[in-house]
Amino acid sequence: MTDQLEACRQAIGSLDARAMSEAMQRWDTLTKPRGSLGRLESLACQVAGITGLPRPRLAERIVFICAGDHGVVAEGVSAYPSAVTPQMVYNFVRGGAAINVLARQASARVIVTDMGVAADFPPLPGLVQQKLRRGTQNFAREPAMTLQEARTSVERGIALTDAHVKTAQTWVVTGDMGIGNTTASSAIVAAMTGAAVETVTGRGTGVTDSVLLRKTVVIREALDRHRPNPHDSLDVLSKVGGFEIGGLAGIILGAARHRCPVILDGLIATAAALLAVGLAPAVRDFLIAGHRSVEPGHTVALQALGLEPVLSLDMRLGEGTGGVLALTLVEAACRLLDEMATFEEAGVATDKTV
Amino acid sequence: MTDQLEACRQAIGSLDARAMSEAMQRWDTLTKPRGSLGRLESLACQVAGITGLPRPRLAERIVFICAGDHGVVAEGVSAYPSAVTPQMVYNFVRGGAAINVLARQASARVIVTDMGVAADFPPLPGLVQQKLRRGTQNFAREPAMTLQEARTSVERGIALTDAHVKTAQTWVVTGDMGIGNTTASSAIVAAMTGAAVETVTGRGTGVTDSVLLRKTVVIREALDRHRPNPHDSLDVLSKVGGFEIGGLAGIILGAARHRCPVILDGLIATAAALLAVGLAPAVRDFLIAGHRSVEPGHTVALQALGLEPVLSLDMRLGEGTGGVLALTLVEAACRLLDEMATFEEAGVATDKTV
Repeated sequence: MTDQLEACRQAIGSLDARAMSEAMQRWDTLTKPRGSLGRLESLACQVAGITGLPRPRLAERIVFICAGDHGVVAEGVSAYPSAVTPQMVYNFVRGGAAINVLARQASARVIVTDMGVAADFPPLPGLVQQKLRRGTQNFAREPAMTLQEARTSVERGIALTDAHVKTAQTWVVTGDMGIGNTTASSAIVAAMTGAAVETVTGRGTGVTDSVLLRKTVVIREALDRHRPNPHDSLDVLSKVGGFEIGGLAGIILGAARHRCPVILDGLIATAAALLAVGLAPAVRDFLIAGHRSVEPGHTVALQALGLEPVLSLDMRLGEGTGGVLALTLVEAACRLLDEMATFEEAGVATDKTV
Repeated sequence: MTDQLEACRQAIGSLDARAMSEAMQRWDTLTKPRGSLGRLESLACQVAGITGLPRPRLAERIVFICAGDHGVVAEGVSAYPSAVTPQMVYNFVRGGAAINVLARQASARVIVTDMGVAADFPPLPGLVQQKLRRGTQNFAREPAMTLQEARTSVERGIALTDAHVKTAQTWVVTGDMGIGNTTASSAIVAAMTGAAVETVTGRGTGVTDSVLLRKTVVIREALDRHRPNPHDSLDVLSKVGGFEIGGLAGIILGAARHRCPVILDGLIATAAALLAVGLAPAVRDFLIAGHRSVEPGHTVALQALGLEPVLSLDMRLGEGTGGVLALTLVEAACRLLDEMATFEEAGVATDKTV
């Protein structure tokens, strides 16, 4: 471990039990039957514990999108060519992608970072340049990256949060772009959880039956060849990961160190979360699963992390779209906790008749 | 049928197939894999069909809350006394209830109507006075209301939409308040669907096992005594319904006539929707189920209507809270359809490699 990663790991604290307990007590004074706001009540308590604020109201909202390409695309595992990754980066920067629309609705900033796209960009306002290399190696043949690159990708993610998270009262949503990254993410989920490859591999952007089969075989053979160590996230990341996935793992670690709630998007973000929790188990309590993707590996990863998603809308787009949709609901939970009248303030009877 | 209800029934149209088909085609030109926005894609198409706009953007948002009391509370079926109904009406008018907080977040207006609260209010800014009577009769002993009152409650709901829906481009969310109204709603669901009473009866605001049993027996005996006709919504409403439920049925009918999307909240709103669909089957296509409540009767009612809820957050508060939370998501769907760049605009490759 270099100093930066180790320092971040050690600085991640635990939930603030006092703030959580105050939040829990406040829910039962508000003008509604006990527990009737369901998941919203527990979500707001979690945010209280993360931020240390008994009535959390977070001012900032950031969607961090990390982009990178994947050498394994050469095996024919994706429905789109790698050229789409830089094209979509331009789309993000111009504000035309799905995540831009949703971020505008949610008043969230979108920070796009090139962690390893297989194309060179001119200097672009709105694009953060942190490229490690023009795409990973094809992990069907060799490790996706070196151990040092894996470490660096995570550290660059941590540095992104240091640069952009100005206050602990910031919602952090994770987003991704990278043709081929469901292949890498499924491999990570299989490696980290021990789940069978066929149970974690899906159609990604929409591949056919025969491509799905090929994708499954490619992942299984890569895991057999490289034998990543599930107790060593950097080993897994280097062997079957991606630069944007390492970047997201770093963002998750960095956000937790800053005591920010992290709203995960789908499969890629949750694969990154498995790596982050492997590096620092305390991170888990800072995570909120935004939605359940249709990718089967996502559900396996959520189960391994013990997370129940907020939304389930049959989405499979990535970019942070499921995360930013959930953000509005988690914010609603915090507003309710903060703004609702108490029984006493409203003069509403609390005496139950039965 | 009086003229007003009959006129409304006849004026409800069907979905605009052309607008829906244009919306569907546009989704496939936008910069994302086909179908990757899941439920959001079909929701926006439905709103296109409802409004007749291929790229719907709705300017207005109204939460209609109808309040009423229930004579059946005398049977000891609720955890709270009827006095809570007017207390909560004051809370709505002052802006301290959960629905007020969520409506502020969603920039929605809240219109509170007294359809039959068992208390008199002074003139209150923000409270619409449409009281039929101070609470229904105890339907364990006699019909909840007369057939004329049932008709009038529905017509007053229709009139509310005529008064407040100024443009077809209005989201309508249904909300309710009424101690005892899960008992009436479960009875309506059982009557309209033929489901067994024990499968549609839940704990409402949080009653004990013994009260749940009593509630179930009260409903079963009332249905045995009154034998409401499932093919006659007004008969069902008059025998086991409530004034606020009739009002909501009218609001649903009126909103559909104005070609507004109707986002339903939980059990009470969906019981009202069963009545409205009984009166005018075309209404069904204008309905969006906001969430799945923990009340078992809600799931039965949703199945009968063929509706799949947007959210599932273990809520059971009513007031329109689940509906207004879903509104943000359905709006997000429409924004995506309208604002996302096309493949052509963004210069993104559409050629699949496989």
